Amino acid sequence: MIDAIICTIGDEILIGQVVDTNSAQLSQALEEAGIHVKRMISIGDNPEEIASVLLEALSRHAIVITTGGLGPTKDDITKAVLGQISGSKGYVTHPGQLEMVHKILAKRGLDALPSNLAQAQVPDSAEVIVNKLGTAPIMVFRDVRGGGTLYALPGVPHEAAGAIPDVMDDILRHQPTESILHRNIMVYGIAESALSERIATWEDALPADMHLAYLPNPLTGIRLRLSVYGGEADGNRRRVEEQMAALKVLLGPLVYADKDSDLETSIGELLKKSGKTLSAAESCTGGEIAHLITSVAGSSAYFLGSVTSYAVSVKEGVLGVPAETIERYGVVSSEVAAAMAEGVRRITGSDYAVSTTGLAGPAGDERNPVGTVWIGVAGPRGVRTVSYCFKNDRKRNIERFAASALNFLRMILLEED
Amino acid sequence: MIDAIICTIGDEILIGQVVDTNSAQLSQALEEAGIHVKRMISIGDNPEEIASVLLEALSRHAIVITTGGLGPTKDDITKAVLGQISGSKGYVTHPGQLEMVHKILAKRGLDALPSNLAQAQVPDSAEVIVNKLGTAPIMVFRDVRGGGTLYALPGVPHEAAGAIPDVMDDILRHQPTESILHRNIMVYGIAESALSERIATWEDALPADMHLAYLPNPLTGIRLRLSVYGGEADGNRRRVEEQMAALKVLLGPLVYADKDSDLETSIGELLKKSGKTLSAAESCTGGEIAHLITSVAGSSAYFLGSVTSYAVSVKEGVLGVPAETIERYGVVSSEVAAAMAEGVRRITGSDYAVSTTGLAGPAGDERNPVGTVWIGVAGPRGVRTVSYCFKNDRKRNIERFAASALNFLRMILLEED
Repeated sequence: MIDAIICTIGDEILIGQVVDTNSAQLSQALEEAGIHVKRMISIGDNPEEIASVLLEALSRHAIVITTGGLGPTKDDITKAVLGQISGSKGYVTHPGQLEMVHKILAKRGLDALPSNLAQAQVPDSAEVIVNKLGTAPIMVFRDVRGGGTLYALPGVPHEAAGAIPDVMDDILRHQPTESILHRNIMVYGIAESALSERIATWEDALPADMHLAYLPNPLTGIRLRLSVYGGEADGNRRRVEEQMAALKVLLGPLVYADKDSDLETSIGELLKKSGKTLSAAESCTGGEIAHLITSVAGSSAYFLGSVTSYAVSVKEGVLGVPAETIERYGVVSSEVAAAMAEGVRRITGSDYAVSTTGLAGPAGDERNPVGTVWIGVAGPRGVRTVSYCFKNDRKRNIERFAASALNFLRMILLEED
Repeated sequence: MIDAIICTIGDEILIGQVVDTNSAQLSQALEEAGIHVKRMISIGDNPEEIASVLLEALSRHAIVITTGGLGPTKDDITKAVLGQISGSKGYVTHPGQLEMVHKILAKRGLDALPSNLAQAQVPDSAEVIVNKLGTAPIMVFRDVRGGGTLYALPGVPHEAAGAIPDVMDDILRHQPTESILHRNIMVYGIAESALSERIATWEDALPADMHLAYLPNPLTGIRLRLSVYGGEADGNRRRVEEQMAALKVLLGPLVYADKDSDLETSIGELLKKSGKTLSAAESCTGGEIAHLITSVAGSSAYFLGSVTSYAVSVKEGVLGVPAETIERYGVVSSEVAAAMAEGVRRITGSDYAVSTTGLAGPAGDERNPVGTVWIGVAGPRGVRTVSYCFKNDRKRNIERFAASALNFLRMILLEED
């Protein structure tokens, strides 16, 4: 297996001003390709430190990927250091990147300053992959001092993310990697430990060349990934599908997608298929459900809108929850969740509506402990509610409330389909 | 200045399943205390690698902080490695942490398994800071092999965050740090380059012992931090206040808080002072404004609720935007933004209301380019609107739309106060 090192460069990471998300994105892509990330390192804009860390990494590992340090300001000295350690004799202008610099500045309505144009200059020891999203080119330095290959990516997260497919393509063309096949399914509504117990017999009987990974996430549940390393592609694909068919029987409706996905995408697919529309009424989730649903491109085809009813007056006045229901059962109750879902369904005219009312924290109230949520789903066949109690902090409780509501909605959509 | 190294331990970071947020939180706290983070390193659950990375770091740096690798499962081998490199002769049970383990499991309704109880055992070379949020104790190993001090924190983000104050306290009691004074103000509505130009004369005239940092963030604008290193505290405080008074005159209403804060907190303070209430009508921001406002603890005192009106039918039916307004001016227009704000103000009965309608991306429409937003604010003195056009991707556009709306609301609240 080939090893890689990821190195982020820039003082803004070391002082904690920016959270490094580039390394996680890169390592996901590398790991899926069967390349093992041995270490991630963050260092500041210091030439000696950059040179020594990178030279050591290149002497030991086949692939070193850097992000950051390539901006036009004077503290961005990474390009000069890379030229120096790779034995460059000088700079050359890359015509493709120069064209991109002019294009990007024109789009932003800015004049091209000398510092912008200098972005298209690279050490003559570099190969260039044009950065289509920004002015700094992606540079490849092969066999640096007889060691590994270095890929230098811009630090801006969406530029780094945009560079990953081209970089992975280059890596796989130049490195002898084993063939690898991944197959994902998404599971929601079961704890990792219970899931592991439930499928233990199946998992223990997997052939030696297959490996199962549990990849949990609070918003999307557990991704189960079955991988086969080496061997023949068509045969592997057939063998993996056979194993997956058996696994899906074991898990039933806990499986919500037959590929890497999330609950909001899966709900969108169900709604698009049935031609139904959706609305939401949120109290404790404060807009998180609407945010998740509208993060899916094309969601305007089925999502009509939502009401965040923080105040009792909005529950009553906008959603039409009867005052006596709130008085009698309390705000956090099955009855109020039901009335909220019915209310938002009525005022928006949607086919389905999902609602939440609960106590995310920090405190509970006289009737319910902190972490309690009631979820309602109203639809053509009436309204149903469910309750959970989670033991997390406020932020995490809100995430679990929202994900549980989406999953409850999904189960009802499936059932009524 | 004292140097520190932060090291996160765990395969889940190296495969990109988890984004490391602990390092940023730790380095913020260290940097505010005048301790310089030289490097961040992420490594896997590999005993030889953990030992070699930590011993090298401890031989060169006064402080090494690890997070992760302390769970009860068999891949969490960090505690054993720490005992070994620090010359431990065996394990001892820490009574304070043991009590905490029992308490936490009882609260979660779980039986105490042997693996849980073992969490309270630490190498006899460790001092313990009780972890009040989880079962794994915070361990301190002083002068490891005659080198630096190592702090081992749990990896769960809220447990790591909860440990930071106690760890900083211990560091500052044991390390000879220079006195340091920070003073923050928050600025919104000006680009970093324009801000830097505007205050250049003032900044250039700062005394040599004062340092100004620009700390930008898409959701909160720019934090300006003025720091004084060394010297006498009372005198420093007076001198910093004098400089800040001059700076605030230069910036006027661009300054929205006289301390480290954010727009939603600042708006909450204005509303609480005036006793007014707020609601929101969101189209392109899809719940982001409600989410930001309700993330402030105590926001239920002034935030009544919001409507996410994704569909035209909800703009018309729920918010009462006239169909002819939409027909005549288009959905993304000053007129629709105004009618949305007035509509949600009317149905919720709030004093103020803020609205957004725009095109976050990926595409624009026939009337407006992608990145266009119209923002409305309705209040007791009528309704006002403003428009912006940003050139970012969808996610970043939504953030800037929401922050611009909050800032427009803030300016009007200030003016009408």
